[in-house]
Amino acid sequence: MNIAVLGTGIVGRTLASRLNELGHAVAMGTREAANPTAAEWLASVGTARGARVGTFAEAAAHGDVIVNATSGAASIAALKLAGERNLAGKVLLDVANPLDMSHGLPPSLSVVNTDSLAEQIQRSFPDVLVVKSLNTVSAEIMAFPNRLPEESQMFVAGNDPEAKATVADLLHAFGWRSILDLGGIEAARGMEMYVMLWVSLRVVQGTNTFNIRLVRG
Amino acid sequence: MNIAVLGTGIVGRTLASRLNELGHAVAMGTREAANPTAAEWLASVGTARGARVGTFAEAAAHGDVIVNATSGAASIAALKLAGERNLAGKVLLDVANPLDMSHGLPPSLSVVNTDSLAEQIQRSFPDVLVVKSLNTVSAEIMAFPNRLPEESQMFVAGNDPEAKATVADLLHAFGWRSILDLGGIEAARGMEMYVMLWVSLRVVQGTNTFNIRLVRG
Repeated sequence: MNIAVLGTGIVGRTLASRLNELGHAVAMGTREAANPTAAEWLASVGTARGARVGTFAEAAAHGDVIVNATSGAASIAALKLAGERNLAGKVLLDVANPLDMSHGLPPSLSVVNTDSLAEQIQRSFPDVLVVKSLNTVSAEIMAFPNRLPEESQMFVAGNDPEAKATVADLLHAFGWRSILDLGGIEAARGMEMYVMLWVSLRVVQGTNTFNIRLVRG
Repeated sequence: MNIAVLGTGIVGRTLASRLNELGHAVAMGTREAANPTAAEWLASVGTARGARVGTFAEAAAHGDVIVNATSGAASIAALKLAGERNLAGKVLLDVANPLDMSHGLPPSLSVVNTDSLAEQIQRSFPDVLVVKSLNTVSAEIMAFPNRLPEESQMFVAGNDPEAKATVADLLHAFGWRSILDLGGIEAARGMEMYVMLWVSLRVVQGTNTFNIRLVRG
């Protein structure tokens, strides 16, 4: 599949490498075409499987599926640069969190409670099939859930069942087994708000390498 | 131990009964002394172990530990009625969630993100040793964690280590084994915000009888 990964942070690089490893033709999208981090990423994976780098718009034009791995605060602007016509009708997997570090620690969320980043994206781009997922774990666990000693839980939320099935296929390929559909895109609120608990858990455990598993009676 | 449970909802009744069963002298506190739900509760447990009902103030005066099981929207007012001098220097286990149903479903939180109900209570009653816990599960699981087939996770947050140890002792008696101290009372933000995810999970699973277990790499 042709996949665009927007963002060159640890999440973008990890997902782009994993998708490349799984055989997809990955375009990493950046604000400026000449991005040294993106160039380094491309050098690390090579071009044998069609990997490439480009602007947000070039990457989005390439992708059948778009992964939003930009920082939450920059996501809407990045997607505007990607361009509505390059996104329309496509599945957008939104893994970003609207973390606001401007007030120091602990972070807060820049959109919360009665709205979410995923809903903002869906409203800004009504023709895009937005699916929220993966934002509840670190980059490493997103791409390699099997590094945890027990099966753990991943969530998806979005308005389009087929788009969620497309995302679930990608997640399965990463190694996710237990994927729970939480419903429409408004369920992204809980997924994003959980991240405030995740931040506490990271601090007290001293590691990013964890997730939650549902235990049912 | 003398324990006050403020609130007669399912959470208050379940915790009051469980604490009574474990041998504590439980006073259930209500806004009006003549509360039929409280009277029913008292009839169900009997007075052999010192169980009683009374106003918020009477119950708080009785308790060495106070459990806030009122609805989040009513908690500060209930604690004011309980009276600062009946609360001062005591451990207050805050199990409430600031759920706001006034906009319909899904609910939102009336305090969130850069503040929490537990912090509001701590600021309103600076001489009280507020500990947030149990708010992340249903009443049944709060009191009977062993009804889940696997060990699952409980959290505590608060500024006073001894108060957290007192709460942890009560939780152990309920059956909780894995109790993670998330730090100061500001960690209640994440614990309360998680409840938005919990609400989604309850809806899609069709049950309250679940919790999360941490899986670490």
